[in-house]
Amino acid sequence: MRGISLLIAGLCLSLDAWSVPRSDEPVSPIQPYTATDSAKVELGKQLFFDPRLSRSGFISCNSCHNLSMGGSDNLPTSIGHHWQQGPINSPTVLNSSLNLAQFWDGRAADLKEQAAGPIANPKEMAFTHILAIDVLRSIPQYRESFKRVYQSEEITLDAVTDAIAEFEKTLVTPNSRFDLWLKGDDAALSSAELEGYQLFKSIGCVACHNGPAMGGNSFQKMGLVEAYQTDNPAEGVAGLTGKDTDRFLFKVPTLRNVELTYPYFHDGAYWELEKAVDVMARLQLGRQLSEGEIGSITAFLKTLTGEQPAFAVPMLPPSTNDTPRPAPFEPALVMEEVETAE
Amino acid sequence: MRGISLLIAGLCLSLDAWSVPRSDEPVSPIQPYTATDSAKVELGKQLFFDPRLSRSGFISCNSCHNLSMGGSDNLPTSIGHHWQQGPINSPTVLNSSLNLAQFWDGRAADLKEQAAGPIANPKEMAFTHILAIDVLRSIPQYRESFKRVYQSEEITLDAVTDAIAEFEKTLVTPNSRFDLWLKGDDAALSSAELEGYQLFKSIGCVACHNGPAMGGNSFQKMGLVEAYQTDNPAEGVAGLTGKDTDRFLFKVPTLRNVELTYPYFHDGAYWELEKAVDVMARLQLGRQLSEGEIGSITAFLKTLTGEQPAFAVPMLPPSTNDTPRPAPFEPALVMEEVETAE
Repeated sequence: MRGISLLIAGLCLSLDAWSVPRSDEPVSPIQPYTATDSAKVELGKQLFFDPRLSRSGFISCNSCHNLSMGGSDNLPTSIGHHWQQGPINSPTVLNSSLNLAQFWDGRAADLKEQAAGPIANPKEMAFTHILAIDVLRSIPQYRESFKRVYQSEEITLDAVTDAIAEFEKTLVTPNSRFDLWLKGDDAALSSAELEGYQLFKSIGCVACHNGPAMGGNSFQKMGLVEAYQTDNPAEGVAGLTGKDTDRFLFKVPTLRNVELTYPYFHDGAYWELEKAVDVMARLQLGRQLSEGEIGSITAFLKTLTGEQPAFAVPMLPPSTNDTPRPAPFEPALVMEEVETAE
Repeated sequence: MRGISLLIAGLCLSLDAWSVPRSDEPVSPIQPYTATDSAKVELGKQLFFDPRLSRSGFISCNSCHNLSMGGSDNLPTSIGHHWQQGPINSPTVLNSSLNLAQFWDGRAADLKEQAAGPIANPKEMAFTHILAIDVLRSIPQYRESFKRVYQSEEITLDAVTDAIAEFEKTLVTPNSRFDLWLKGDDAALSSAELEGYQLFKSIGCVACHNGPAMGGNSFQKMGLVEAYQTDNPAEGVAGLTGKDTDRFLFKVPTLRNVELTYPYFHDGAYWELEKAVDVMARLQLGRQLSEGEIGSITAFLKTLTGEQPAFAVPMLPPSTNDTPRPAPFEPALVMEEVETAE
């Protein structure tokens, strides 16, 4: 008997070792990130959590890309300086390094370019790059960290955004159950979830939501078959190009961790994943899904929640007597001042 | 030679082992906290970081008691719901378990009682306890955690605040350089810092700032010898008792981590530690310190920065379709609604 048990155990082990990665699927697993410059990552993490990069001293990158909440703020549109209502849903920072460009309209080429935006946006952190760097420069521990990482006595916007981007590159979420299945672990998905994935492919969701991030790699028109109804004035890429053909062209959002990144769409109008699936099928694919089909796809989508970034809460070096003070209750800077300061 | 080296090394070790704790000092070291119920601490940590305990879905305990920033927000007074300006400086949560009572006026007996306050304060998190518990109850992972910790199917305000308080009790900061000195390590302080401590004692600062937290253990009048000039309308304990003798009676704040908890005093009017020392000496002790004396005491105070709490950023369980949605841009609840809801 013992010999047979061992034989079976050996066979199981062998089968497991032989499990074949599903390399012919239109989605590939999220790869873990190996940091090559841990000092830069640590500096970027501090900056990501530092509200002194905002005029109020209250809003940090993590305020709207909260790493306790799927890298988003779970609000339809974000809260900015003086509680201003942001124009668009805050996209998750998780796996954002896999995007072909940043922001919903792709106006920033990469994470580094993106990071500079909110700091100086009067509706978001409402600061200026010059003042933000003045803050950092006044703090000896930041001076030392920048010097160690960038071999320069100067702190530049380039270095600040480079460090933030380097930290953000570590925010990948490998080993979701779906990724385990992609790697060959048949037991990682239930039959209902697998059915959802088959449906996700067969009806055409995968045409836009493919690649490792299941999105983030193309721009598509929101409301392809049927128009999307929204009060949100965002026009997508047309806001940059002025071209009518670019109206409602948005970057396809990643579906990774979609269970955590509600509410959905660029206007954050849909809180329920089932409803988001229903709307997408109708508007993009011209297809009315049954409740059962919606349930299958939703069940599948919930298998895309990966391992969340695990790291210690960063400690921020204290301000000094030379640090410019935050001005949370003073009037917002007017645009002219902001532009002059840059 | 080798024998002598070993002998010297042996002597040093012995001297170190014999170093005598300074038990006759009016300050004792901060003791590390040993958690007995790690599941409760973990639950409390999640709640402390969860902005869904606010009406906006944006403000958590950590917003104003930021554990990356000495357990404070480093603002004169805090930012609340709809960017309302708070009435008083947010005290550090670090070592707050050592306070004889909570809030500047001591109106909460302990951390558990304190934790309920900001959630339902219309100027702070602007929620109601009932709605906050509705949120938690709608989230299966929270239901499981509460059941595991409190052996009950019900989630109560009592349990919520108990868990938050349990997490807060872990937020002690042992092993500051001053504590190492108190434990007998002569080299932990420079002679200038030690001189500052001697002065701190001899001029009378220690009369109020004593015990392990160097404060937090008595109420004292702000402006004992000379009146404190401020625009802040807070009247301290008199706000509770209505007694004229209680006017400007405030809980003495801890000096632990004071380097991190600027700006200073109940109105947060002073950003520079040197100026705070100067004001305190004049108003409480009737003493005009020289620049050198202020420098010595400030140097000593900076040795009170202890080991900051080190823990992983908590992951918050996602909302469900049943979770009441945040209302960041809707008008604040009026007081009557709040009272009715409780």
